[in-house]
Amino acid sequence: MIIGYLGPEGSYSYEAALSCCRGADLRKLNTFREIFNAVEAGIVDKGVLPIENSTEGAVTQVMDGLLSMHRATIEGEMIQQIQHNILGKGRLADIKYIYSHPQAIEQCREFLHHQLPEAILKSCSSTSEACKIALEDSSYGAIASSSAANIHGLNIIKADVQDNLMNQTRFIVIGREDTSPSGNDKTSIAFSFFDDFPGSLFQVLREFAEVDINLTRIESRPAKAELGRYIFYIDFKGHYREPEVARVIENIKGITNKFLIFGSYPIGANI
Amino acid sequence: MIIGYLGPEGSYSYEAALSCCRGADLRKLNTFREIFNAVEAGIVDKGVLPIENSTEGAVTQVMDGLLSMHRATIEGEMIQQIQHNILGKGRLADIKYIYSHPQAIEQCREFLHHQLPEAILKSCSSTSEACKIALEDSSYGAIASSSAANIHGLNIIKADVQDNLMNQTRFIVIGREDTSPSGNDKTSIAFSFFDDFPGSLFQVLREFAEVDINLTRIESRPAKAELGRYIFYIDFKGHYREPEVARVIENIKGITNKFLIFGSYPIGANI
Repeated sequence: MIIGYLGPEGSYSYEAALSCCRGADLRKLNTFREIFNAVEAGIVDKGVLPIENSTEGAVTQVMDGLLSMHRATIEGEMIQQIQHNILGKGRLADIKYIYSHPQAIEQCREFLHHQLPEAILKSCSSTSEACKIALEDSSYGAIASSSAANIHGLNIIKADVQDNLMNQTRFIVIGREDTSPSGNDKTSIAFSFFDDFPGSLFQVLREFAEVDINLTRIESRPAKAELGRYIFYIDFKGHYREPEVARVIENIKGITNKFLIFGSYPIGANI
Repeated sequence: MIIGYLGPEGSYSYEAALSCCRGADLRKLNTFREIFNAVEAGIVDKGVLPIENSTEGAVTQVMDGLLSMHRATIEGEMIQQIQHNILGKGRLADIKYIYSHPQAIEQCREFLHHQLPEAILKSCSSTSEACKIALEDSSYGAIASSSAANIHGLNIIKADVQDNLMNQTRFIVIGREDTSPSGNDKTSIAFSFFDDFPGSLFQVLREFAEVDINLTRIESRPAKAELGRYIFYIDFKGHYREPEVARVIENIKGITNKFLIFGSYPIGANI
């Protein structure tokens, strides 16, 4: 079993991939797109992708990437508790530059604003790259996980610097297998409408409301055409093979333009 | 009249601010947060903020910033046609590094993937900062507007590199004045629910559907608590002082927890 994740080692994705399937081989990939492509092509068996964070919201590149799946489906999900730390070689007072992935910086904005107001914030491609930079000079700090401190030989200068102590990321696992109903499943779909959406979105939500199917998430993304055109993503409870869910899906197909099922999968737990 | 915008000069926000009120003084600010704060404090009269792009989606920092407004409201909007270009000192074949604001890089990802697959993509704080870096070496390219080429003395190495030729950004204008109904208005609201949202969101949409009020946008953002808690943003046609709209708003207040009106303002045109 080979699992693709967004490298390098020590990233939050690495931690999620580790806990996804113990004993599997982890394959480090460079972009979300590479992970989607590798699963589609059968180069890896599964891919682990962050899709939503409780502070930052949707991971839009992954949301958009779902639309390109042909063979791949979502097979599972898991919730990771994110703990950010300032890592470095010196003391907090020495820090003049903070490096991290843009989402990690975003999740610590209040802390940085109040505790390091003079620090210059620098985006880089991953928390691990930030750690490598932080090794160069004691005026550099990285925002990263505590396991990254171990991997890179950095000190935890200040722990728990995320603005919300409740900072969680939901990861999805994509693969090429069909999952059977487990009795506690979730289904992810996306759709667009032929014309303006107002009444149409209401009709879709009515289909779910009438049979008491609970939605767990609704997101809109631009249809990449003119402003005002959207693709809607809905997660709801149930498996697409359950008769009631299958009926709702058939009804929704009748009122939508593009309609995609990304998969039905067991509702995830904390890792 | 002083208008705050996200600097530096030559940015797309600068171009939007220029066309917002001809003859006004433009005040360059460093972050979206500073723009919100300056309008709240009366340091500037108005602020110009990008809120949505047709490729990249919501500008989440601005969406989140709206929640912090007390005195300020949305007074207007405008649509900007975005044209990205590769700017630099050399030829396309010389480019080894591409610098730009992350959203501009994101909007040119297909072009970069196919035309400059070896180039290393570097995020910086603005398209203008990218231009300054591109002046240093002919192996550096910046993604920026054509007016930025003039301001910084760079060549347009390759024009129109955005993945979608239809690449538009919607800007809002915030201020401290109350706008009267113009006859062609839009209202922006946000709300959250006491508990799980499934049925509640359906009820809100039903309020609009029953009186044929058209929604133009619906977005969700995390409530910054645990996963699964959201704040919903809706834009709809009409002014909050119109009796029918006022009735719908009263009904929605009854089924929501937090409820905010960001403003009613004339529907914007292209600039």
